[in-house]
Order: sequence, then C-alpha cells, then structure tokens
Amino acid sequence: MIIVIKPNTPRDQIDAVIKEVEKLGYDPRPIFGTNQTIIAAIGDERTHHTLISLTAGFPQIEQVMPVQKRYKLVSHESRTQPTVIDVDGIKVGGGSFAMMAGPCSVESEEQLLTTARSVKAAGATILRGGAYKPRTSPYEFQGLGKEGLRLLQLAKKETGLKIITEVLSEFDVEHVAAAADILQIGARNTQNFRLLIECAKTGKPILLKRGLSERVEEWLLAAEYILSHGNPNVMLCERGIRTFETYTRNTLDLSAVAIAKKESHLPVIVDPSQGCGRADLVQVLCRGAVAMGADGLLIEVHPNPAEALSDGQQQVDFNGFNELVKSLQPYLEIAARKA
Amino acid sequence: MIIVIKPNTPRDQIDAVIKEVEKLGYDPRPIFGTNQTIIAAIGDERTHHTLISLTAGFPQIEQVMPVQKRYKLVSHESRTQPTVIDVDGIKVGGGSFAMMAGPCSVESEEQLLTTARSVKAAGATILRGGAYKPRTSPYEFQGLGKEGLRLLQLAKKETGLKIITEVLSEFDVEHVAAAADILQIGARNTQNFRLLIECAKTGKPILLKRGLSERVEEWLLAAEYILSHGNPNVMLCERGIRTFETYTRNTLDLSAVAIAKKESHLPVIVDPSQGCGRADLVQVLCRGAVAMGADGLLIEVHPNPAEALSDGQQQVDFNGFNELVKSLQPYLEIAARKA
Amino acid sequence: MIIVIKPNTPRDQIDAVIKEVEKLGYDPRPIFGTNQTIIAAIGDERTHHTLISLTAGFPQIEQVMPVQKRYKLVSHESRTQPTVIDVDGIKVGGGSFAMMAGPCSVESEEQLLTTARSVKAAGATILRGGAYKPRTSPYEFQGLGKEGLRLLQLAKKETGLKIITEVLSEFDVEHVAAAADILQIGARNTQNFRLLIECAKTGKPILLKRGLSERVEEWLLAAEYILSHGNPNVMLCERGIRTFETYTRNTLDLSAVAIAKKESHLPVIVDPSQGCGRADLVQVLCRGAVAMGADGLLIEVHPNPAEALSDGQQQVDFNGFNELVKSLQPYLEIAARKA
Amino acid sequence: MIIVIKPNTPRDQIDAVIKEVEKLGYDPRPIFGTNQTIIAAIGDERTHHTLISLTAGFPQIEQVMPVQKRYKLVSHESRTQPTVIDVDGIKVGGGSFAMMAGPCSVESEEQLLTTARSVKAAGATILRGGAYKPRTSPYEFQGLGKEGLRLLQLAKKETGLKIITEVLSEFDVEHVAAAADILQIGARNTQNFRLLIECAKTGKPILLKRGLSERVEEWLLAAEYILSHGNPNVMLCERGIRTFETYTRNTLDLSAVAIAKKESHLPVIVDPSQGCGRADLVQVLCRGAVAMGADGLLIEVHPNPAEALSDGQQQVDFNGFNELVKSLQPYLEIAARKA
Repeated sequence: MIIVIKPNTPRDQIDAVIKEVEKLGYDPRPIFGTNQTIIAAIGDERTHHTLISLTAGFPQIEQVMPVQKRYKLVSHESRTQPTVIDVDGIKVGGGSFAMMAGPCSVESEEQLLTTARSVKAAGATILRGGAYKPRTSPYEFQGLGKEGLRLLQLAKKETGLKIITEVLSEFDVEHVAAAADILQIGARNTQNFRLLIECAKTGKPILLKRGLSERVEEWLLAAEYILSHGNPNVMLCERGIRTFETYTRNTLDLSAVAIAKKESHLPVIVDPSQGCGRADLVQVLCRGAVAMGADGLLIEVHPNPAEALSDGQQQVDFNGFNELVKSLQPYLEIAARKA
Repeated sequence: MIIVIKPNTPRDQIDAVIKEVEKLGYDPRPIFGTNQTIIAAIGDERTHHTLISLTAGFPQIEQVMPVQKRYKLVSHESRTQPTVIDVDGIKVGGGSFAMMAGPCSVESEEQLLTTARSVKAAGATILRGGAYKPRTSPYEFQGLGKEGLRLLQLAKKETGLKIITEVLSEFDVEHVAAAADILQIGARNTQNFRLLIECAKTGKPILLKRGLSERVEEWLLAAEYILSHGNPNVMLCERGIRTFETYTRNTLDLSAVAIAKKESHLPVIVDPSQGCGRADLVQVLCRGAVAMGADGLLIEVHPNPAEALSDGQQQVDFNGFNELVKSLQPYLEIAARKA
Repeated sequence: MIIVIKPNTPRDQIDAVIKEVEKLGYDPRPIFGTNQTIIAAIGDERTHHTLISLTAGFPQIEQVMPVQKRYKLVSHESRTQPTVIDVDGIKVGGGSFAMMAGPCSVESEEQLLTTARSVKAAGATILRGGAYKPRTSPYEFQGLGKEGLRLLQLAKKETGLKIITEVLSEFDVEHVAAAADILQIGARNTQNFRLLIECAKTGKPILLKRGLSERVEEWLLAAEYILSHGNPNVMLCERGIRTFETYTRNTLDLSAVAIAKKESHLPVIVDPSQGCGRADLVQVLCRGAVAMGADGLLIEVHPNPAEALSDGQQQVDFNGFNELVKSLQPYLEIAARKA
Repeated sequence: MIIVIKPNTPRDQIDAVIKEVEKLGYDPRPIFGTNQTIIAAIGDERTHHTLISLTAGFPQIEQVMPVQKRYKLVSHESRTQPTVIDVDGIKVGGGSFAMMAGPCSVESEEQLLTTARSVKAAGATILRGGAYKPRTSPYEFQGLGKEGLRLLQLAKKETGLKIITEVLSEFDVEHVAAAADILQIGARNTQNFRLLIECAKTGKPILLKRGLSERVEEWLLAAEYILSHGNPNVMLCERGIRTFETYTRNTLDLSAVAIAKKESHLPVIVDPSQGCGRADLVQVLCRGAVAMGADGLLIEVHPNPAEALSDGQQQVDFNGFNELVKSLQPYLEIAARKA
C-alpha cells in the first residue's frame, strides 16, 4: 500500500506512522519528496491487515492507496487459459457460446413446456425459468417453488435442455441443486456471501449476476468467494446496473463484458432482458453483447408476455426469439472465427 | 394504472388494449384526447396483475404508469401514530432517541468490554458489534461468529446495554436472535427477502439498512416484507448510498430520513460511520441527522481504530465518541422540544 | 398530464384542483376510482404551463405525471426518414458510416499532420483535434486556440479530411465555424443552451455529446434546441456516462445508441475513447458500437500517447488504429447489409 | 505520482518506464517489492505533465495514482482563515450567515416586489430571481432577460436587498454584473470554464453551484479557475446531485457541505429547493444544512407556487418561508455559539 503523508508534516509524526506500519506487519519504505512524504508499505495486501484504518488514528495521513489486486483465483495470474464450464455435457466459455432462454417465472406446465420446445427449436441449449422469485414487493407472485423445480425437470426430460434456475435461500440450495444444472445467483444476492458459499459446496456450475451497483472489482471478489470455497465453475453475468437513466429499467453495461474478460478467465454471460427491462431492445443488445465477446446470453421468452406473472415487459415471444437468434448468426460467426 | 397509447393509434388497436385490460381484472376508463388516448385502469394495483407487461404484447402502448403506492402496512395510511419500538425496555421512535454505539466487529473480550463501558458512560443505551461480518473479499476477517455472540451477551450482562448485531444467514437467525435485542440486516442483504422473512418470524426488533442503491420505495417494500410476515418492529436505517463521488466511501443521504418519515410511521436511524467511511466526518453528520429528525444513531467506536480488524478508518475512539455525544446535546434538545 | 389525488380526499378539494387545472388552460377529465381519484388534464404539455407546479399549492395532490413526449423535431413523428448529414461532401447517417479520428488535442504541426496522414491511410474521412480544450483543472494544457485551428485547416488542405473540433465559447463560434466542418459540443457544455443556439445559427453540422449524467430525454431536448433554432444537422454522440464504477473513467452506455435511434431520426456517433478512458478497451468498444447500430465513431489517435499533452491514456497509436479499423470490417459489412 | 508496475515484469521493461518518467520531468524512485515494483515519481503534479498517459504507451504499467491535491488556491494550505465575502456590505462566511430568497424566475414587477418585501420582512438579506433561465426544453419559459434585471434593480432600490441572479452566457456577463451583487453560475454551467473566467474578470462575488454529477474535487477545481483568474470571492453552493433515487428531483448531498469546508476556506451555501425539487421537504433540509455548517441558504419563494412559470413544485409561499425562518432560529443560534 502507499501511504500519503500530509504536506509539511514534522519528521517525528512521519516516524510514528512508519513504526505503526512495521507493527502491522509491513516493510515500510519512506520516500521523502520536497513537500510531501509517501511511505510504500511492502507486504501481501490481500491477507494482511488493511492500512486504510490508519487514517482514523493518524491525522497526519492524507490517504492510503492499495496497490495490489484483491482477487487472485479468478485472475489470469492464477489461470492463463479461459475457464470452460461443463454444464452436463454442454460447454460454456473458451469459444463455446451458450444460448440460455426461457420464461422469467415458471408459471405452469403448459407455459414451460411450450416455451422449452420453442426455444430449443430456435437453437437454445439451456432452459431458464424461475421457481423461486425475488420480488420487490411481498404482494407480487413469488414463484411456484418446488412445483416449479419439478416442471423444469419435466422440461429437461422431454427436450434435453439443461436447466438454469435461481436459488434464493440457503435452505433451498440442496433441492435446487438436485433439479438444476446451473445455480443462478441473482443481482440482489450477489453479496449474500453465505449463500454463495453454500452454493459453492454443491460443486454445480454457478451463474453469478452482477449486483445493481457492484463495481467489477466487487463482482470478481464475490466470484472469488466461490472459487476459494473449492468451486471453479463460475460464470459471470452482466445484467444491467443502476444509473440515473429512467428510460430503461437498468443500464446494460456492455463494457463490463470486456473488462471482466480482461481481468478474469471466467466466462461472461449477458442478460439483456433484465439489462434493459424492455422487450423491444433485447435483440439489438444481444448483438452488442456478442460483438463485445460475451460467452453466452440469458434471454427471457414467454408464450404471451402481456399476461406473464412477472416482468412481461421484458420478455420476447416465440417469434421474437426466433428472429433474434437468426439476427445473431453473422455476429456469432465472426466471434467463432476469432476464437 | 394509466396506460398511455401512442399518438394516432387507430381505434381498433385501442379497443384491443381495453379488452385486455378488462381481461386482466381492471375496469378500463379510456380518455380520448385530441392526439393521444389514455386509459385509466381502475383496480388494486398492489395485488392485481401488473399492466406494465402489456408493453411487450401491445406495441401501440407508449407507457404504463402506476398510480397507487406499492406499500401499505409501513405507510401512514395503515397507522397514523409513529411506531415506538420496545428494545427490551428501551424505547425507540415517537420522540425517544436511541444512541447505539460499539465496534464494527467484535474482536476480543477486552476490546468489546472496554468499548461497552466507555460508550455507556458517554450515554449510549444500545451496544453494536458484528459477530458475523459481510466482507467484500473472502480473505478479510469474517467475524468471531458464535464466540462474538457470547461476548456480546457478556457485555450486556455487565453493562446492561441492549445488543444489536448483524445476521447474515438464515442458518444463524435462531442463535443470533437468542443473543441479540435487535437483529441488524445489512445493506447487502436488504433485498434478501428470505432472510427478512426468517428474521421477521422471531418477533425481535429488526434494524433494516437501506441498500447501496435502493430507492426509498424499495426500502419501504423490503420493510413491508417484514410487517406483512407479522413483525411490526422495524427500524429503517440510512447508511449511505452509492454515487459517483469518491471522496467518501458512500454518500450519506440525509434527505432519506425526512422522506422515510414522510412516507412511513417507522423510526429512522442513521449510520454515519458506514455513511461516509471516514472517522473525521462522523460528528458533523450526526448533527445533520438529528436536525433532519432521525430517531437514533448507530456509531462505530473502537479503542484503537488504527488497528481494528475491519473498517478502522470510519471508527471513532473513546474520546471522539464522548465529544460527539456532547456536541449533539443542543440538537437533541431542540428535537425533544418539537416531539 | 395525469394528476393523482391522495386517497380519501373530500370532493370539494378535488374540485379545487379541477378548477385550477381549467384555469391553467387544460381540459380536466376526472376519473373517480373506489379509493383514489385521478384527473386527466388534456392539453399540449409541451407549450402549456406545467401542472407539476400544482403539487406546491395543493397538498391533496399526490403526484403529477406527464404523458406526452417533450421533444418534437428530433422525433420520428416529425421526420420518418433517418437524417443524413452532409459534411462538406461526406455523408453521415442513413447507412453512411463515418470514421472520425485524430488527436485529443492539436499539439503541433508535426503531431497533427503525421496523425492526419496516418488515420487517412487507415480509412478515416474526418479528422478530429481539439484547439480549445475544456480541462478540469486550470493548470492543465488548455489547447493552442486559433493556432490549433490554423493547423487543422492545413491538415484539411493537405489530406482532404474534413474537420471536427470542439467549440467552448460563444465568443469563438464564428472563427471555429470558419475552420471546421463539424462543430463539436462537449459533454460539459451539452446543456449550455446559449452556446447551442449560437452554434445552431451557423448552419454547420453539430456533433452534440451526451452530458456526464444526462438522461436520453434531456439529450434529445438539447438537440431540440438546435433544431428549433433552424439547424437540422445534428449528430448525437454517446461518450460515456458517470456511474459508480471506477475501473473506467466513464461507463460507455451502448444501449443509448439503440434508444436514441428508437426515439430520433438523428445519426448517433460513439466516442469510445472518452467512453472508457483506456486505450486498451477502445477496439472492443468500437465493435460493440457498430453492432448496436452506430452511424460513426470518434476515436482519439496520437503518434505517441505516453507523451500526449491531454488524455494520453485513452489515445491509441497509429498501429493500434490500423488494427482497429481492420477488426471492424466484418461488423461494418453486416451493418451495410442491413442498411 | 505512484506508478504501479504489473507483477513479474522483467527489469528492462521497468527501466524503460523509469527513463520515460525522467524524460517527462519527474524524479523517479523505484521500490522493488517481492512480486511487484512501484515507482514513486517526485515532482509537482499540478503543473507537470500527467503520468497517467503512460498507461497507453507502456502496457507493463498497471496503474498510475496521483498523490497530490490538484487544487491550491481554494485549499486551506493557501489560506488558513475562512474567506468572508462582502456582498455590497453584507458579509457571507466566517460566521456570517446569509439568507437568500426569492422566486425561481422573475415573472413580473408585482410578483417580484411582493416577494422581495415578504422575504425581507421574514429576515432575508439577499434577493434571488432568475432573469435568464436555463430550461431543459426550448419550449419552456426562458426568463424575461434584461427586463428581469431591471425589475431586480427596482426591488433592490425599494427594499435594500442585495441581488443574486444567474448568468448563462458570456455575452450577458457585463450587463448581469451591472445589475447583480452576486453572479450565480448554475449546475449546468459549472464546468463552462470560459463563462467562469469571464465572470471572474468582473471581480463580483460568484456563487458556483455544484454540477449534477460533479465530484467535490472537480467542483473545487472549477472554483480554482475563478480564483486563479484573480477573483477570490467565490461561494460554493450544493444544490443536489443526480442519483438513482426518483422520489426527489435530485439528492441533496449535505455531506458535501462538511467536505467542502474541510477542503476549502470558501463559504458554502445550500440550495434545498433545487436540491429536492419538492416544497414540502425544503424546511427540514434547511435545518440539516445549518446543522452541517452551511454559511447560507438559497431558497425559492413565490407568491403562488402553483402558477409559477418555472419549478413551482419546489417553491414555498410567503407563509411557508416565514415559518421556515422561524424554525431555523434555534439551529442558527447553536451555529453562532460555535462560530
């Protein structure tokens, strides 16, 4: 870490900081400038005591700046090749693109099965569908729960599609993991670290959504929780961040795809449906996502969005999804040539 | 809800929307303007199907605007008097101001007990201290867990201070509730609805922090989860929101105190330590919070902030806390005259 | 507009609002629900008095919601075909893609001319270069001013490239317009309406950057200032918005390209250099921009970015730009097939 | 500045950076850690070349971190006593509190004069009123212009109140300065540096509003433009920042008052009317502002807010202002005791 001392601080007050830095286990290397002194504190910032706390006890410190990256296992330093995740036989990452589609919520057998058949015919290989739904209001539809999981398994049996579904509660991890091929962690739970650890223990692939106002560094550190608990099968998922813009529900941050891939070997998926909250923008956002290097898409598809029990406004219908997949082909081909 | 139809939409396409609105259980009242038609859809928006989904199925709709408030039990409509919460004999809200103070994390018996004695002497009535800590990185100190709870109980026994501590996991609710007088839900878990419900069931007072980028409406709806699961003892806690500003860790939104009190009968607490992440701003932020009508404060105090195991930079020391309490007196007196 | 009356408001207080609505020139149409009354106020919201002011005078009003769009000339209602702008013979928009490139600041004759030759050889048709620079600190390089304009003209004469350069001051509009083919309005001046009007009067094409925290609606209204002052030649330019993310200087909002094109007939340009503030992300962001339907790019290129007098960190060098243009070809071809 | 080299960079690549740092006029002091090297570059960061540009030319650099503060004249280093501004005989700052009030826009002689008399009677000493109005839409009321200035002078003559009014255009600076005692720079023009310089030259006191998404550092640097152009009479004005919250128009950042005073000797004024955009929150926000140490308030007052030509929703009426001033007395008394 770098400790910046306020200009014109007397030498004995600088020495007091140096002494404390040493006491906290770092090797202090002061550099005396004309007006200002800085102290480079050599040591492993990830596991040592943070020196930022010093600012509360030593008013002669102007600021403390970390130097090292806080994540390790998710970074290219730890693994030079892209992680490729095996989702019950389907590969995701490292050149293998995954099309995940399905309804926001599982609502009924008919709704789910007609959707599963339709997205499969259009080219999807993984079926999404929420059995447990995190809803802003307690008065909104909360999902079918275990019955929803049963229907997802039925859809898998019939169509062969792999299953991704969200897990909301530590109490549900076991039975969701029994029914799903990928455990989805939603944006609201992305720093619910105990849930992350519980999911990590299952060994199942995990799709980790970025939080509503989570910096990329924090998102990667949330993934680091999963990897450091023994599960390397993490997909990052950009799903829109919260900004001042009100035209869309969220602002899909496509640059985060490039940044996450620059910083990490993990595959990056994009969820354009949540990302904008408007069905009419989903197709064009998918094109952008593929061009930016996304390893997969997570798209909400519903037989009749206008009557959906949750988030109909952002779900495309069967025709819309067909058209979307077709319009993506040329972009996927360029990506495949590069991979 | 109000459905705004795009200008120059032919009548039959308007009728199609009207028909669908009826089908979804609302009473549609169209108003035909010169250029534009709107449809007022009469019905209980809280429990009915949301009409926003219509935008995905009916391109002739420009937008759908909700009219009713989404929260009920937390609002003044449901309860005209301010909620006063009984924390094992200490009142919070409705004119009773609560001073909660203590270390960010419980680190040791000595650290906790000296702090407890000191904050009590200065005037605090409730002791804070984290036994379970949500940390951005898995490599950071995660709290003492059950041993931390034991120490909190010890401090209560010795000083008589009531205990507030954070609960991170559904698995921990029971033993945290056994040790604590107030269950604290942190900013990262504020929309972890299953944890909210689990905490609600204990009947214990709950302090619900506002999420990092949670709108006041969403915060109140999170509280509504707790009330609608049978527990009316909720304190809202503003603790800083995430903005573009980098001088402070978060931007403490003091206006949220006034807004929350305008919209709800629940007491509102302010956490200035998290709110700014800098010990040198805590005192002045406390003054602002009291002037804005806060019902209490939650302040981080540590015997030696520079060596704290978590967030030392925002913790004040014993002298700092003493001075802070004294500087607040005149503001508390004005508030008391108004209450 | 829609006026939402608070639940349980007595009839005479509703009537008072109705009377005031009439007085302000609207035709009020009340709709009485079971609990709540709303008043639809029919009238032209763009030119009439705003009813939002009513909330200050009538506490029985819960909220006032606008219904109509505030922009007119920039919208598809006013013009069904995409605007194609003629930049001294070069077309921009409606299927014609513009590659604009050059240094952040004009620094010297050699720097500018070598860059001009290089970007032309790579395929650019418009040369960018700042003669007047808006710098956050008064101690930073403020541009060469008129000498910079002279050099830009020299570069145009030699290479035939058209010139885009920023105008900062109403006092400079005349001489900048004499030297430039496109007047650039920077993010910090996007709501400097008097400057917009002064630039509009020149009749020159104007590239209007989106403000750091400008909603798309506000950006379009800024463009509306220019169109309503008689100049239809506006290009919108997305250049990154300010968010909580600190990895990049700004967050490039590629979804804004799709939204702006959905709402307006004006061409949309993307500036990835400002958008991220990092040279190493520029190429991938350009790919995303093209896939999202951008009508052009504005890219910072410098012979030696490490020694640039402004924003070197986001400028690519000549090789970088060559490679970037080549990597874009397949994406431009798909776009051309669609146009 | 601190240059952080990527881990495991070979020595010759480190040397290349060191050489370039020297070439750019800094004294490089490398510190070789176990895994990572950092280079402390000693030199005046305010006036030298910024080393951040190096990241574009030297991929072995991970990041460059500035160490010094970028502002000088506005900081306590340059002036240890608080700046007290003389507004035609009225003092602002250093313990002298200024109450500025008046309509958002000057609309008519009667509107202005009745307001001036009323706010004076209530205790205001400075009259606000916009003659030139920056409006988001070109179709909204743009102010009375020179006629508005004439009315402000009339009001001054009659009541003795000093005048503050906004200047939007470099072309208007001269005649606005002739009519006003304080030149107000609005949030949208806060980084319109040429306007700042033009206003600085008049020597008049300037109230500089914080931009919608301006970091405190940038706000102080905008003030630094004015001071470095020879005008020390700057008041900073917090007026709400743009966040994700939609309940209020802006989020008033009261912590910015404390931060600005911590970093600068300039007086800090708070504008609660713009800050929240709701008349019903103005009073409580004023209390918070005074408790946080504000040196003055800028409050919008209108004889009949419901019919105001601009922003009526945030203007209080005469009774409201009277009551507000009374409610502030106890807070001002505490502040006076401290000053």
